[in-house]
Amino acid sequence: MEFSAKQIAGILSGKIEGNADAKVGNFSKIEEGKPGTLTFLANLKYAHFIYDTQATIALVNDEFVPEKKLPESLTLIRVPNAYSALAQLMAMVDQSQTKKPLVHSMSFISPSTTVPEDNYIGAFAFVGENVKLGNHVKIYPHVFIGDHVTIGDDTILYAGVKVYDNSVIGKRCIIHAGAVIGSDGFGFAPEGDKYKKIPQLGNVIIADDVEIGANTTIDRAVIDSTIIRSGVKLDNLIQIAHNVEVGENTGMAAQVGISGSTKIGRNCMFGGQVGLGGHIKIGDRVNLGAQSGVISDIEDGKSVIGSPPMGVKDFFRSSLIFQKLPDMYRTVNQLQKEIEEIKKLKK
Amino acid sequence: MEFSAKQIAGILSGKIEGNADAKVGNFSKIEEGKPGTLTFLANLKYAHFIYDTQATIALVNDEFVPEKKLPESLTLIRVPNAYSALAQLMAMVDQSQTKKPLVHSMSFISPSTTVPEDNYIGAFAFVGENVKLGNHVKIYPHVFIGDHVTIGDDTILYAGVKVYDNSVIGKRCIIHAGAVIGSDGFGFAPEGDKYKKIPQLGNVIIADDVEIGANTTIDRAVIDSTIIRSGVKLDNLIQIAHNVEVGENTGMAAQVGISGSTKIGRNCMFGGQVGLGGHIKIGDRVNLGAQSGVISDIEDGKSVIGSPPMGVKDFFRSSLIFQKLPDMYRTVNQLQKEIEEIKKLKK
Amino acid sequence: MEFSAKQIAGILSGKIEGNADAKVGNFSKIEEGKPGTLTFLANLKYAHFIYDTQATIALVNDEFVPEKKLPESLTLIRVPNAYSALAQLMAMVDQSQTKKPLVHSMSFISPSTTVPEDNYIGAFAFVGENVKLGNHVKIYPHVFIGDHVTIGDDTILYAGVKVYDNSVIGKRCIIHAGAVIGSDGFGFAPEGDKYKKIPQLGNVIIADDVEIGANTTIDRAVIDSTIIRSGVKLDNLIQIAHNVEVGENTGMAAQVGISGSTKIGRNCMFGGQVGLGGHIKIGDRVNLGAQSGVISDIEDGKSVIGSPPMGVKDFFRSSLIFQKLPDMYRTVNQLQKEIEEIKKLKK
Repeated sequence: MEFSAKQIAGILSGKIEGNADAKVGNFSKIEEGKPGTLTFLANLKYAHFIYDTQATIALVNDEFVPEKKLPESLTLIRVPNAYSALAQLMAMVDQSQTKKPLVHSMSFISPSTTVPEDNYIGAFAFVGENVKLGNHVKIYPHVFIGDHVTIGDDTILYAGVKVYDNSVIGKRCIIHAGAVIGSDGFGFAPEGDKYKKIPQLGNVIIADDVEIGANTTIDRAVIDSTIIRSGVKLDNLIQIAHNVEVGENTGMAAQVGISGSTKIGRNCMFGGQVGLGGHIKIGDRVNLGAQSGVISDIEDGKSVIGSPPMGVKDFFRSSLIFQKLPDMYRTVNQLQKEIEEIKKLKK
Repeated sequence: MEFSAKQIAGILSGKIEGNADAKVGNFSKIEEGKPGTLTFLANLKYAHFIYDTQATIALVNDEFVPEKKLPESLTLIRVPNAYSALAQLMAMVDQSQTKKPLVHSMSFISPSTTVPEDNYIGAFAFVGENVKLGNHVKIYPHVFIGDHVTIGDDTILYAGVKVYDNSVIGKRCIIHAGAVIGSDGFGFAPEGDKYKKIPQLGNVIIADDVEIGANTTIDRAVIDSTIIRSGVKLDNLIQIAHNVEVGENTGMAAQVGISGSTKIGRNCMFGGQVGLGGHIKIGDRVNLGAQSGVISDIEDGKSVIGSPPMGVKDFFRSSLIFQKLPDMYRTVNQLQKEIEEIKKLKK
Repeated sequence: MEFSAKQIAGILSGKIEGNADAKVGNFSKIEEGKPGTLTFLANLKYAHFIYDTQATIALVNDEFVPEKKLPESLTLIRVPNAYSALAQLMAMVDQSQTKKPLVHSMSFISPSTTVPEDNYIGAFAFVGENVKLGNHVKIYPHVFIGDHVTIGDDTILYAGVKVYDNSVIGKRCIIHAGAVIGSDGFGFAPEGDKYKKIPQLGNVIIADDVEIGANTTIDRAVIDSTIIRSGVKLDNLIQIAHNVEVGENTGMAAQVGISGSTKIGRNCMFGGQVGLGGHIKIGDRVNLGAQSGVISDIEDGKSVIGSPPMGVKDFFRSSLIFQKLPDMYRTVNQLQKEIEEIKKLKK
């Protein structure tokens, strides 16, 4: 879809300098501006790029004063805050791409489930028995929803999401392609040399405004529930084991793994590839650096990294000295000899 | 489904104290007991929770003597061993949830494949040519089974499992949603600056009683087979490369990665996020701590952790001293100066 | 399918020694040769296995001279280079397994998309609106292709691959089962205690001759594109975040994670489970050892490992001394005391 400078300026209450009929169909960064795109100058650090950008329209702050001639092909739209205006346009475009209500004839809905009229259910989606679907739910092709699942208003399940029986998903959640919700926890009891499966009969509860990344897996509890509280943001390929609880607004980068029964507080931030052991308690507002390995509790408000985790500056200091260990080892051996020498001389 | 205290006591040969008509529809832990659930008191450490539980029924050991008044709303069922009785009930419930035989009209079965009458094949499942299906096999919606695959009796493939051509899967296996069996191994031969694909023509063989977690991937061999022996338990998001062999009853926690042609013994236990290099041999009964990195052989019976792995106590000792490295570095420099001083004085 | 020694010798212009009618249906390694298979002896280190192999046919180099009697059941085919001949046969078998052109009646193709006659589109595949499909494209069952996607000639998407709207995939690419292309980048702006989603409106561009492993995820850019250049080979379960660029012919082993906006050069090799921070630049021909953690730029041509990365030999030296840290710590404390002694004596 294309928009003219006039239309965009209308939406943003901006002032046009240049061709009001100039048309754009996409966004671009100021340093990579292509013809037919709208770019933006929010940070003056990047101002030098605007003088030879090929972008067709640029959003700039009202007070922007060019230091030299702008490209002939460029139309400016002046707004009070270029970054906010950009965010407003992006949100509009995002909204316009939403799926229209439809229950595709090649989907399968169990007879005991009722689909509200404003839902989108794509081709080859499977919806099990007694599923409760909220309003404006969007279920993409190849989604599997087991029996007795609840899905709140305005939630989106992208292609190929799998939701096991009895899972509960809140409102305004976004679950990306291939994520698995409610698979069996990894629980086995030894029987001689072998292992016997412990049935996993609990479920997963996901609260409102949660986003879950592509191919992330969340196991259901043995009994009770694995709980993801409201506002949690999980990136791709994360593993959440059975009986874990993740507190409100906690964010985790890709490939983090959380072992069984661990409780994580609210507003934590975990870097990529972090691993947490089982049955531990992480406080609120804990920052964990990438690749940390944690096997004991962490108090509220700590910023730590490493295995076991330590203060961030200390970690990088220790890491630098790790690189000098061979030298240090030789020095210590040398000192040891020299002291032996000195002691011999003493006698 | 709901069960009365009378029905449950009947199943377990237990003795009721309280309301024989009390009904439950789910399990709960003693510390989180909710109305309408059955809880259990197996470990007396948790006994204090029973005096104000809201659970409707509690399984207790025959010899349990309350120290104070139990809730009015609680019915006890006494059994010789509360934990075993719970396990028995959980297994029953688990069993009752099993899918009934059915070949869904919206599945696709290649004409050359015969489906035994007691199989469940869900909507949108795809079964390729000349597939051999055992008895009581359960194939959930969106499962893909390539050509010439063999699947043993009582095996369950959950939603969206993908099985490439020629794979062999044993009896009583459970493969969780999104797992991929038999994808191409990562094999390329350099050709100048570029890489040429080495065709991957082997297969994957999975023996009996294996459980494979959600979104785990197992690559097929170049030639011959990648082999997962009986009783192996793999958690979610694990990577098994081509030509790997995993010995009987070995268990691996989530996000472990095993490189090509590595052989792993029986009854090993690997923590989460462990990485193994290629072409190495891990003995039997080896325990590897979480996040270990291994690039050489490990003998039978070792318990190790780290990169390269070392004894567990030693690892934690070294890790603690890692945190003190900056201090130690300063101390060594200081000692060096002092010895220089002393040596100067000597002259 | 079975081939006789005569047929194979014909294909390879080889010379038969033994039974020209001997038939094989599969390959085997020389150390595991089974009846009915073709094996090969390329490296004389393995020559001792040929004297009691059960394989039916062996490819050997023209100049191979047996040192003792070969099995009666074995037919030799002599060729100038046994390894090249094997590769030629494997490529032929690989080619012969390719899917025949077909648009399955149980697939769904949006009316605005045209499918070239030589494409394979499997059952339950979903192809969105205005998708541009090249020649000889193969789309397996359960593949999801969003709207406005482009797919080049001869590309294969295996079962359950999900491609979000606007993605561009080049020619001769192979994307393995369960991989996700174009999911939302992980971008949120703090709003008080909570996080607000930043719309992700860019796309993913994958150039020619790229191979992507099973369950790997590649996020689309905020604006502009996440770019995977030609010849890149990604193993299974890899995470590529939004706005990343991966240079030509770079290879990454399984479970690597690349954070947002990082640029990686050409012909790099990353070991398994490597993690890269965001907004950094990795040069050309960089080798990164397994499990490395990288948060700053790396120059062209470096071979490094660790967190932060260092030279490979230095890393292994430091790792060995890491194991001796408790001893070293005691030694340093002891030296400190001895020097105190010496200094006291001085006075």
